[in-house]
Formats: sequence, structure tokens, C-alpha cells
Amino acid sequence: MIVRRNPRPWELFFILRGSIVPQIWPQMLLVALISAAVTLLETHGAIRLPPIAALPFSLIGVALSIFAAFRNTASYDRWWEARKILGQMVIDARGLARQALAYLDADPAAARRLALLATAFCDALRCHLGEATPDEAALRHLDAADRAQVAASRHAPNRVLALMSGAIAAALGRGQISAQIAQTLEERVTALSGELAAAERIKSTPLPFAYSLLLHRTAYLFCFLLPFGLADSMGLWTPLFATIVSYTFFGLDVLGDELVTPFGATENSLPVTAICRTIEIDILEALGETDLPAAPVPENFVLA
Amino acid sequence: MIVRRNPRPWELFFILRGSIVPQIWPQMLLVALISAAVTLLETHGAIRLPPIAALPFSLIGVALSIFAAFRNTASYDRWWEARKILGQMVIDARGLARQALAYLDADPAAARRLALLATAFCDALRCHLGEATPDEAALRHLDAADRAQVAASRHAPNRVLALMSGAIAAALGRGQISAQIAQTLEERVTALSGELAAAERIKSTPLPFAYSLLLHRTAYLFCFLLPFGLADSMGLWTPLFATIVSYTFFGLDVLGDELVTPFGATENSLPVTAICRTIEIDILEALGETDLPAAPVPENFVLA
Amino acid sequence: MIVRRNPRPWELFFILRGSIVPQIWPQMLLVALISAAVTLLETHGAIRLPPIAALPFSLIGVALSIFAAFRNTASYDRWWEARKILGQMVIDARGLARQALAYLDADPAAARRLALLATAFCDALRCHLGEATPDEAALRHLDAADRAQVAASRHAPNRVLALMSGAIAAALGRGQISAQIAQTLEERVTALSGELAAAERIKSTPLPFAYSLLLHRTAYLFCFLLPFGLADSMGLWTPLFATIVSYTFFGLDVLGDELVTPFGATENSLPVTAICRTIEIDILEALGETDLPAAPVPENFVLA
Amino acid sequence: MIVRRNPRPWELFFILRGSIVPQIWPQMLLVALISAAVTLLETHGAIRLPPIAALPFSLIGVALSIFAAFRNTASYDRWWEARKILGQMVIDARGLARQALAYLDADPAAARRLALLATAFCDALRCHLGEATPDEAALRHLDAADRAQVAASRHAPNRVLALMSGAIAAALGRGQISAQIAQTLEERVTALSGELAAAERIKSTPLPFAYSLLLHRTAYLFCFLLPFGLADSMGLWTPLFATIVSYTFFGLDVLGDELVTPFGATENSLPVTAICRTIEIDILEALGETDLPAAPVPENFVLA
Amino acid sequence: MIVRRNPRPWELFFILRGSIVPQIWPQMLLVALISAAVTLLETHGAIRLPPIAALPFSLIGVALSIFAAFRNTASYDRWWEARKILGQMVIDARGLARQALAYLDADPAAARRLALLATAFCDALRCHLGEATPDEAALRHLDAADRAQVAASRHAPNRVLALMSGAIAAALGRGQISAQIAQTLEERVTALSGELAAAERIKSTPLPFAYSLLLHRTAYLFCFLLPFGLADSMGLWTPLFATIVSYTFFGLDVLGDELVTPFGATENSLPVTAICRTIEIDILEALGETDLPAAPVPENFVLA
Repeated sequence: MIVRRNPRPWELFFILRGSIVPQIWPQMLLVALISAAVTLLETHGAIRLPPIAALPFSLIGVALSIFAAFRNTASYDRWWEARKILGQMVIDARGLARQALAYLDADPAAARRLALLATAFCDALRCHLGEATPDEAALRHLDAADRAQVAASRHAPNRVLALMSGAIAAALGRGQISAQIAQTLEERVTALSGELAAAERIKSTPLPFAYSLLLHRTAYLFCFLLPFGLADSMGLWTPLFATIVSYTFFGLDVLGDELVTPFGATENSLPVTAICRTIEIDILEALGETDLPAAPVPENFVLA
Repeated sequence: MIVRRNPRPWELFFILRGSIVPQIWPQMLLVALISAAVTLLETHGAIRLPPIAALPFSLIGVALSIFAAFRNTASYDRWWEARKILGQMVIDARGLARQALAYLDADPAAARRLALLATAFCDALRCHLGEATPDEAALRHLDAADRAQVAASRHAPNRVLALMSGAIAAALGRGQISAQIAQTLEERVTALSGELAAAERIKSTPLPFAYSLLLHRTAYLFCFLLPFGLADSMGLWTPLFATIVSYTFFGLDVLGDELVTPFGATENSLPVTAICRTIEIDILEALGETDLPAAPVPENFVLA
Repeated sequence: MIVRRNPRPWELFFILRGSIVPQIWPQMLLVALISAAVTLLETHGAIRLPPIAALPFSLIGVALSIFAAFRNTASYDRWWEARKILGQMVIDARGLARQALAYLDADPAAARRLALLATAFCDALRCHLGEATPDEAALRHLDAADRAQVAASRHAPNRVLALMSGAIAAALGRGQISAQIAQTLEERVTALSGELAAAERIKSTPLPFAYSLLLHRTAYLFCFLLPFGLADSMGLWTPLFATIVSYTFFGLDVLGDELVTPFGATENSLPVTAICRTIEIDILEALGETDLPAAPVPENFVLA
Repeated sequence: MIVRRNPRPWELFFILRGSIVPQIWPQMLLVALISAAVTLLETHGAIRLPPIAALPFSLIGVALSIFAAFRNTASYDRWWEARKILGQMVIDARGLARQALAYLDADPAAARRLALLATAFCDALRCHLGEATPDEAALRHLDAADRAQVAASRHAPNRVLALMSGAIAAALGRGQISAQIAQTLEERVTALSGELAAAERIKSTPLPFAYSLLLHRTAYLFCFLLPFGLADSMGLWTPLFATIVSYTFFGLDVLGDELVTPFGATENSLPVTAICRTIEIDILEALGETDLPAAPVPENFVLA
Repeated sequence: MIVRRNPRPWELFFILRGSIVPQIWPQMLLVALISAAVTLLETHGAIRLPPIAALPFSLIGVALSIFAAFRNTASYDRWWEARKILGQMVIDARGLARQALAYLDADPAAARRLALLATAFCDALRCHLGEATPDEAALRHLDAADRAQVAASRHAPNRVLALMSGAIAAALGRGQISAQIAQTLEERVTALSGELAAAERIKSTPLPFAYSLLLHRTAYLFCFLLPFGLADSMGLWTPLFATIVSYTFFGLDVLGDELVTPFGATENSLPVTAICRTIEIDILEALGETDLPAAPVPENFVLA
């Protein structure tokens, strides 16, 4: 995720980091070249273009704007929902640790294990979203037995949840907590399980492909034909304006694609690693540890 | 559901799988033919068209774009809500299994039965949405008694829920779980029942018919009359632009229809079978089984 | 609610059931007549119209489209929210029956009474929304005492809820269920009470009247003045296009009105009776009854 | 809130009650006068206007429509959220009464007191929203001690909630209800507290002022300059069309303001008093009272 | 947050407080100057502009309006969500105090401590959002031990939550409250923890930077090129209209930025301090204190 203050007006045109120009300049260049060719041919009478071509371009332009806005809204909503899910995970991981430490005070080792499972869950989810098995960071706070079980599992975050429920049930069985407190702790586990499934849903379900395809195709047709609609009335101004219009439409088109994958590895993806690190620090501090990991900071304006 | 990476620009115009062109080419062809005829007649002076026809087409075009966008938003929201319901079902089915195994450890057979009822519920719901009785896959993990009851029921998923509540009540009656744990397990059953009713709601309630009818009619009137509005000013370019505009408007119209039925059997429907298979694998693994079904994979870019 | 498959393109213009043409043809005819008169007077030079009138009509047309879209979105959201409330009622009525039968097994008669109160509640709500006292269908499963109480009440659904809470409290008092199970059952009653109040809210609160009035007035002014804006440039085509534009705008205006009253008695209203019948069948089946009412089917494409 | 059936087409132009014309006629008149003056000066050659002024007016008109629609959506959402909060209050006040009567049957006086506190809470909230201390109607069902406490409090609804929690805790302390039932009753109190804070939030937080100011200014600039843009092409039709356009834009602007304050005292405000009266009747009936207040009815189409 | 009544029409153009003109006048002036220069050069034939330039400006203008509206909607939604979170914090802080006083009556000192921790939490969150350590106002009601712990913590609000859970667990351990009441109190703590994480989420996650950058750039290109599109047809009216259009577009652009940071220190930020003060007063009054802080009032129309 890009983290930087709003640019001042005079900086606006010199920022590349976070801009989509690097991704769409070939298409923009192509529009500029087509425009130049069309203008040249028109001026020399080699082709004859309709004098008033506003209607079809207005119709497609309005429809494209409205539907691209709808698609971008849907993309952004997914992105923001993904962010909410991670925020909810912060609540429930910290909450499980806090409640375990407060209510399972009869067995500090078990409370500590639950708190560490909470931070391991977040890291295991992070790896799961990257389609990897849990890495060293995810497992390092677990004891050997838990670590082995999680590493052996086909679905690591699910296994961590099962370990949590097992730990709560064991404490209940030993009479260290009442059934109500077990219920309260289990609510946190259920909530973490909900965040896992919600993240899996967003990761595995793209926007309907037919929709994206229709919009991409319309955007390309629109921008590549635009010079033919502008050349007669705009004359030599055609390349300039065709390129600016194509910048707007290609840019919005590409941005929609970026936000669709909030758990990806692009500059606009969510800072999953940083969030996991924050949870880890919070929980370790609650456990009284003093050797805490460094707080995550953006590098070159990007927080990963 | 179609699963494929974003096409590169140069691939964009050669993709048929997932495109809506195969569904709307007859209408597009008809618009092209009307355009050609109108242009021919106009050029030979056989008919006289108004020189500036932008106003009525702009008005209808803008209204149609805005309302089609609204309808597509509503369709997409249903589609995404359906996906959320399935995701929620993943949470609650896995959760019931996890909680049964952790808290009903006094009676492993009953815990196992609850976990298997959870996966059977999902498959029974899948069949119910396809208006079929539970198939072999849905029943295969149940013991003979449960299987008979579910197969005999008018409403199989409902019957599975009743079996779950009965099992929880029996364990409570035998004193194997406390009332609080019964409450916790029953919350999962209630949640599954909510997902069942929500899926039934989306399946049985289409968008208001009058609305779709009005939009279809307006789209057809608009596209078939467009050549008459373009021919005077666009001349020989009329067939090209009329066809492109009709591609956009027919395409958006048809896409809205597709997304309205997320539990259908089209390419854009949700992968209900794959989700059921995933739940089954997760639950069987949690039960310690090693002979797991194969994970679902897309065939020819379509995940069913 | 109209239930029919998507019309094929060639059927599109011959469907009356579910179309809004029957409701707006007088206005459309009036627009056609005004257009014909204006065109005639213009052609004979009796009136002089401005040559380019696009600006004011574009401005009003765009504003009207956007605001009518907003109003229709709000109407549709109410309609869909109403549908969700009914779906939620399905969940909670079936859930109360299921939980009563499972957990109140110590007293089958009381469990059965709770299940029948659940179906009676839905029918009482149905009658309440129609501003009627409970009809025979609503009361027929209740015993004489309950029936008398419900029939005598000013607010029948509320009375049914009070009977439910009373029955749960009595079972708790007799020690047949634990306090936790009473809590679980009471949650269903609270949820049903929530659905009652939500349905009352939608029924009793129309969209702000001033808003609808402003949109109606603008739509009428717009459509009746449109011929004056088109006649100069469109000539003899004026009646055709003015009528098509007015079809779109009047149609969208009227549709918004229809969806505002989801609990009404129009073709686009929700099938409250069918939903109550489905709940009744599900609950009677759960009670082991075999003499079940017939499942509701659409008549002439309309499900009531 | 205005309650009246949809007007018939021929009534549409004769309704003043609920119309916003009474609020915006001065501005409309001013636009008409400016238009007449501009047309006169133009016709006599005193000023020269640009022949084609469509572009700037289209640009501002489209932007203004879209942003006014967004603002009205936000206003309406607040209005509807406020209505939901009141509906939720109906649920929880009736629910607290129902649950107290059912589960606190060991102490009918305490149950009755809780039920009456529930209706008093709603009336106290009503007065609080009007920035008044509780009136006679709010306090009349309370006993002398409660009445004195509520009347003396800086924040009456909050005090009623504290009395409720105190009553539940007392019944729990006397062993008349179990801890689970106390939890269930306290959930209602917490929910009422949530509705109080939500209503306070809507009342105290207007839409961002800068936003409303920008839209008001743009609307005024747009409407007052419009005659200059229309006069050259529309000639004598200018005053008519400029006034109609300004009717639409001023009307939408003013409507947005009205809906922003759902708890106000305008015709479009929510019927808070009527809702409180309905709750009072429902609760008194549940208490077996027969001398019930009259049901609220609209006066001159307005329900307060 | 700016709190002032709606301005009367004649006041509309004289308000600076809350207006965005002070922020965008340099850009507006630049557009005016460019317009004047272009008009001058055009009139003297020094440059030749296309006679009809409506198409590209319409296309960009419509796209820009729609996407800026989408961005402003997203900004406003964040702002309103932030307000809801604060409102929810009011509910849960007051609720924790109310419930502690009612149900922990066996130990008034512990109840009082919980209530004071609730108000300290809100102030600690306020400081945390301003990236500061808790100030004197945040800590002044805590006893020395709690104060030391909170002041020493890396994450003060989290520490307050841990103190709350610890206090509840201790009361449970001493048998002063039942497990159910502990559950009820802990629900409030969990809710406060949720509001903390949600506020952190909004503060730390800006709108996607690439999106804002694309819109800023398009708005600047659009406004600075507009004079070239208007000059040929608007002549001497160009500077007036170009400046008004740029006022609308720059204004909407800047407003979107303001609302994105609801917890900032601008005029349009939320009144976090005032809300904390209100909670403090409510809780102190509930504790029977009579020496209450002054209620917050707006200064120069701004409530901080």
C-alpha cells in the first residue's frame, strides 16, 4: 500500500511511484500515433471523416464511464472489505490474547500458548493468502508440538483454530475456566475463523470475468477509434486530446484491475505483513516480553 | 465461474470463453444489416432522415446507461451476496466440526457424526439449489439411519439441521456437554439455517420482472433505431459505429441477466460444487482421514 | 411477484403481463398527440420553435435520469429489504420449531405448541400487513385458548410473541429446560419480533412525499414539453421519438412507485402468502404431520 | 411525515402540501425575471451572447446533477437510518416489556415497572431529540421516585437506562431471575442505549458543511447564469425553460436539506411522537390496561 | 466539525468559514489568467482553436464527474463510518459504566474503577489517533497504579482494555459477579476493542493513492485546457465560465481529500475531543459527581 501525503499541485505531474502511467504508456502512445496518422491523412484528403461524430462517442463514452465507475466501485468495495477483514482480525487476535491472559489466570502457560496461537494464526493466514506454507515467522512463537502439527497440515490456519478450540476445551475440562468463559473465548476463535473464510472468499472470487472483458474491449475500441471521431473538428489538436482522453479511460480501467486483488503483491495491495507484525508486537507486549520486533515502516512510500 | 488471469491487451479480441459475443451476435448482426440498409437508402435519397438527431438518442442513451448500471449493480450485489452466503456456510460448517471435535470429546462418535452432518448439509443444500434430491455425494458420509431420514424428507437440508439439533440435545441430555456448549453448537446450526434460507431467497426471488422487461425493450428499441439517427451525419461509418454501440448496450443487458442467477448452471454461476468439495476435504482432514477427495480445479477456465 | 423465465428477443414486444404499458399508455398517447399537433403547426409555420433546443432538455433529462435512478434504487432497496425480512422470518420460524422439538423433548405438547405458534405468527403478520385481523388460516393450528387470546388482541402478532415467551418461561419454571436453552429459544422470539417491527416500518414509511412529487412533476413537464424541443430538427420523426422517450421516463417513474410498497397487492408485490404456506408446510412436516397443504404455485405467472 | 396516496396525474400540479414550491418560488421568480431581462436585451441587441454556450452549462449541469444526487442519497440514507433506529427502538422497548412480563413473573410489580420504564425511555428520547427536558407524557407512567430521578437528571434517557439496569440487578440479587435471564433483559437495555446514541449521532452530525456550501453555490451560479446561455438559441422560450430547469435544480437542492434533519419539526421529519404513542399503547395493552390512548392519525396529511 | 445553520440564499456568497475557496483560489486564478490570455490571442488571430471542441471536454468532464463522485462517496462513507465508530464508543463506554454500577454493586470501588477506565479509554484513543501519548485529561481520573501502567505502555488504549478485563476477571474470581455478568461486561470491552481497531484502520488506510493521483491529474489537465475549448465559441465570456467550471471541479476534488482524514485536525474533521468530554460528563454524573466539566461548545462555528 502506498503511504504518502497528498502531493502539492506542482508535484502532481512528476510523481511516478504509485502512478499508473508506467502501465499504460504503450496504449497511450499507440493512441497518439493513430491520432497523428489520422490527422495527417485527413488533412491531405486521403480519408474523409464524418463532420459530426459526437453522438456515437458520447453514447459509448457515457456508458463506459458509468459502467467503469460501477466496476471500480465494486473493486474498491472488495479492497475496503478486505481491509476491514484484516482490521477485524486485529480485534479478535488481540482480544483472544487479552481474554486468555485475564480469565485463564489459573494456568499462565495455557494462557500464554493461546496468545501465541493468536499471533501464529495471523501469520499463517498471511502465508495461506500467498499460497505458501507457513514460514519461519509464522511458526517461531509456537512450541515444538504445535509447530509440527501446523507445519504438517494441508490448511495451516484451520489447524491453528483447531488447536485453539482444543486448548479452550482442555482448560474447561480441567475446570480452570467456567463454561461461560469458554464460550467467550470460543467466540473469538469463531470470529477468527470467519475472517479466514472471508479472506479466502475475496482471494478466490474475482469479479465476473465476462464483465471485465466487456469493459476492457469497449475501452480499447473507444480509445482507438476516438481519433477518427475527433480529427475532422479538432484538426491538429487531435493527438493531444485523444491521448488525454485515453489516459483517463485506460487509467480507470487498469486501476479497477489493481484493486480487485487486495491480497496480491502490487503496490496497491494491502499491507498484510505489516498488520501481522503489529499484532505480534501488541501480543508480545501484553505477554510482558521486552524484546519486541521493530514496528513496520514504509519503504520508498510502500508499506508491504 | 470463470477463473483466468487478466488478458494481455493483444489477447483481448481473441477470447471467446467467457465473452458474451456468442450470445448477442444475432442482435449485433441485425443492427449491422439495418445500418447498411438505412445508409444505402439514405445515400440514394430513398428516405430522408433528420440532420440532427442527437437529442432523443442522447436522452435515451443516458437514461438507459444509468438504469442498466443500476440493474447490473443490483445483479452483481445478488451475485456477491450469494458468494458471501456460501463463504459463511464454509465458516459455519467447518466451525461446527471444529467445535464438536473439541468440546464433545467425551463422545467421539457423536462428535464425528456432527462433523459429517455438517458436510452433508452443504451437499444437500447444493442439490436443493439445483432442485434435486440429495445425490450420492451428499449422503455418502452419513450412517444408514441418517441417510434414510434425509433421503425420505421433502426438504433435505432442513432435515439435516433437525438431525444436528437432535444430536446436540441428546449429548446435552446425556450430560456430555454443558448447556453453554450446547448453546455454542446450536449457534452454528442456527447460522447454517440462516444461510439455507438466504440461498433460497436469492434463488426464488428474481429482480422485479417489470423492471427487466422495461430495460430490455428500451435497449432493443434504442439499438434498432440508432442507424436512423446516425446515417445522416456518419454516412458510410454508420454500420461500424451502430454495431459497436449495440455491442456495448446488448452486452451489458445480457450480463445483468447472467449474474441474476448465481446458483444457476452457466459459466458465470458460482462454483457451488467446488465449495462443497473444499468443505468436505477440510472436515475429513480434521477427522484424521487420509483418503481425501481431490481438490477441485477449473476445467477449460471454468470452476463449477 | 411475477415469476417467468427471461423472454426471448422475439417475445419481448408481445408481453403484457408484468409490463407497465397498461398503466402508462394514456400518458404516452397524450405525448404522441401533442407531438403530432406540434409537428403539424410547425410544418405549416403556425408556430416557430427554437432551432437548437438541446441544452435545456439535456440538462433536465440528465438530472431526471440520475434522480429517478436514485429513487428507483431506494425503492428497490426497500423491496429487497422487505424480501430479506421475510427470508429472515423463514429462518426464525423454522428455527424456533426445530429448537423447541430438539430441546424441549421433555414436554412434547409444549414443544408442539411453540412450533405451531411459530407458523401462526407468520400468518398473523401476513394479515397485519394487510391491515386485517388474523384470518382462519392464521389461527387454525392453535388450540382454543391461544386462538381466543390472539383473536381478541389489538395487535395479533405481538400477542403471539407474548404467548411464545410465556410458554418458554413456563417450561423454564417447570425445570424442563435450562436457562441457557430458554435464552436460545427467546433469541428466536426476539428475532421474530425484530422482523415484525421491520415489516411495520417498511409498510408505514413511504419514500419522502416531496421527493416523489418533485420527480413526478419534472417527468410530466419534461415529456409534455419534449415535442416542442424536437419538432424543429426531427420533423415528421417527432411523434415516434417523443413517444419512445416518454415510454422510458414514464415507465421508470411508475416502476419506482410499484416497488415502494412491497407488501401491497400488486403484481410486483412480494409473495407473502406463499412464504407463509411454505413455512407452514416445513413446520408441519417437522411435527410429523402427513396431511400437508399444497405447495404454492404461480398462477398466470404471478405468485401471491 | 407526509402520508398520502400517490397523486393521480391530473392532481399532480395542484398539490401544495408536501411540495417544495412554497420554499423556492422566490428563487424561481428571480430566474424568470433575469431570463426576461436577458431575452429583451438580446433581442434589442443591447448585449451579445455567445451563439453556442452548451459546453460550460453541460459540464456544470452534469457535475451538479451527479453531486446533488450523491448528497441527496446521503441525506436520504440518514433519514432512513433514523427511521430504522426508531423501528429498532420499537422492537427493544416492546421486547423488554414482553420479556419482563414473561420471565420476571415472580415479581409482577417489578416486571410492570420495567415495562413502564421502557415506554418512558422512548418518550424521554423524544424530548431529548427536541432538546427539551422530559414532558408530562414521558413521565406519567412512572412512580414518584423514578419520576423524580429522571426529572432531576442532566440526561434523562440515560438515567432511565440506569434505572432499568438497576431493576434487573436487583431482581437478580433477590434471586427472582437467573443470571441468564438477567443477561437477556440487559441485552435489551444495551440495545436501547445503542439506539439512543445512534439518534444522538444523527442529530448532532450534519453533512459536512463545506460540501453543502459548494453545492448551494454552484446551484445558484448555474441557475442565475443559465438565461445567458439559453437566450441566443431559445429566444422567447428562454424564461419558460430557464424557470423549469431552475425548479428541478433548486428543488433537489432544498430537498436534500430537509432530509438531513430527520428528527426536526418539518413536514418531512419522522413521526417520533406517533411512534412513541404506538409503543405506549402496545405496552399498556400487554400490561392488561384497557384505558388506552388514542392511536395517532395524520392531520392534514401530516403525521407528527 | 463546522456547526452552523443552513445559510440563507443572500448569505451564500459571503461565507468564508467552511468554504473551500481559500484553498483553491490560486488554481482558480490561474485558470482565469490562462483564459484571458487564450481569449486575447484568439481574438487577435495569434492562435487558431478548433471551432467545435465539445466532444473531448464532454467525455473527460462526464468521466471526471462520475469518478470524482465515486471518490467523494468513498471519502464521505469513511467520514460517516468514523462518526459511527465514535458513536458506538459512546454506547459502549456509557454501557460499561452503567453495567458495572448496576451489577458490581457488591464492590462499589471496583465498579467505580471500571467506569473511570471507560472514560480514560476514550481519551486514550483520542490521543492515540493524534499519535500522542495519553495527556493529562486522559489519565486524570485513574488511580496512581493504573496511571503508571497506562503511561508506560506502548499502546495506551490497549493497556486500558487489559486493565478492564483484569478487573472483571478479578471480580469474577472474588465471586462478586457471576460468570454471566462477567460475560456481559466483557462484551463491552470487546466492543470497545473493536472500535479501537476500526478507528486505527480508518486512520492508517488512505484511499488508494493511484486513484487519487489519477483524479487530481485529470482535474488539473481538464481545467487548464478548458479555456482552449471554450474560447472560440464563448469569446469574451470564456474567463467567467472557465473559472466557474474550475471552481466546481477543483472544489469537489479538494473536498474529497478533506473527508478522507476524519480524525485529522482540519475544520471538517470529527469533534473527537467534544465526544470524549461528553462521555466523561455522562459517566461522572452516573457516578454521582457534581463537579462536572463544562459541556463542549463550538468556537467560531467549529466544534473540535
